[in-house]
Amino acid sequence: MSSYNVAPLEKLVEQFEKMPGIGYKTAQRLAYYVLNLSKTEADTFAKSIIDAHEKIHYCSVCCNLTDQDLCPVCKSEKRDRTTICVVETPRDAMAMENTNEYKGLYHVLHGAISPLNNIGPDDLTIKELIARFGNDNEISEIIMATNPTVEGDATAMYLSRLLKPMGVKITRLAYGIPVGGDLEYADQITLARALEGRNEL
Amino acid sequence: MSSYNVAPLEKLVEQFEKMPGIGYKTAQRLAYYVLNLSKTEADTFAKSIIDAHEKIHYCSVCCNLTDQDLCPVCKSEKRDRTTICVVETPRDAMAMENTNEYKGLYHVLHGAISPLNNIGPDDLTIKELIARFGNDNEISEIIMATNPTVEGDATAMYLSRLLKPMGVKITRLAYGIPVGGDLEYADQITLARALEGRNEL
Repeated sequence: MSSYNVAPLEKLVEQFEKMPGIGYKTAQRLAYYVLNLSKTEADTFAKSIIDAHEKIHYCSVCCNLTDQDLCPVCKSEKRDRTTICVVETPRDAMAMENTNEYKGLYHVLHGAISPLNNIGPDDLTIKELIARFGNDNEISEIIMATNPTVEGDATAMYLSRLLKPMGVKITRLAYGIPVGGDLEYADQITLARALEGRNEL
Repeated sequence: MSSYNVAPLEKLVEQFEKMPGIGYKTAQRLAYYVLNLSKTEADTFAKSIIDAHEKIHYCSVCCNLTDQDLCPVCKSEKRDRTTICVVETPRDAMAMENTNEYKGLYHVLHGAISPLNNIGPDDLTIKELIARFGNDNEISEIIMATNPTVEGDATAMYLSRLLKPMGVKITRLAYGIPVGGDLEYADQITLARALEGRNEL
């Protein structure tokens, strides 16, 4: 930009600017924050990036992120092994987990089918999901918790067709108005779905 | 939070969460972004943090950030050496530079006097500013471009009292309504200052 640029600083700004939701001004602010760290703090920060990158990989069963072979949920003996909740991302699994309502297992697809973005079924962890239906599996229900988007819906449909022959119950999260929301601000489609899925009181 | 946390990931989220303007959700998003980087990209990112931290220091004259002994502005022969623009932060200097109107030198204070935050004159680079009034200095004007806040004003006042005996002209950036702004939304004080500083057409 100006004659006033400092190469190592600009490189750092560039790194931050690549991140989702971070524009040039924010990237600058973050870079200045890093400059103001002590040497130890900066080293810790850099190390935590490398560490996270090196130590974290997919759980060998559910494909969620973990630094061990099995993630805590797959390893836990308290979880209900008859139910698998299929989500798009590890963050979705964490959101489900934070409800404190779900006690079953997960399966993280790491994306959704999206022909526009060149993501087909083979790019997701669908193989791994099918592998869970082994000889002595106890699975009785698969909850499709993919996002309420065109891609999420398509993925849920695709998977339900694929898995129904395995003889399991396939369910989908309910669509409806969000709790604490305002009918006035709900969009048409959400409201139509809420009406469609109305329950008896 | 939940039983689903992965230690190296949580550490990384923590690091991001400490940054200005970054909350837990954004920190999480950034951490997942880092996990999705390739190994080379993650290494580059970590290295750029360490690099910026190690290579960048204050310019020995104006105290702006640089990776050389003198910053490009202090080194340049095209700049007007009779004028010094005093700013609080390197980002303020960059903002001035981006106007493409200012051709003089800078001095970066790295803060403003703020008794509430325990920042006194000795915590700023005021010594270094005074040192620029050496035997063969050509300085004729000091432009106070500290922020239009209580702290910035106080710092400008303090410095003007300190520097006036040196026989230089001391000026302050004009207060007024921002270009493209709307009178209706301008606050009382700004409007009063704009009135006070009105110019003949």
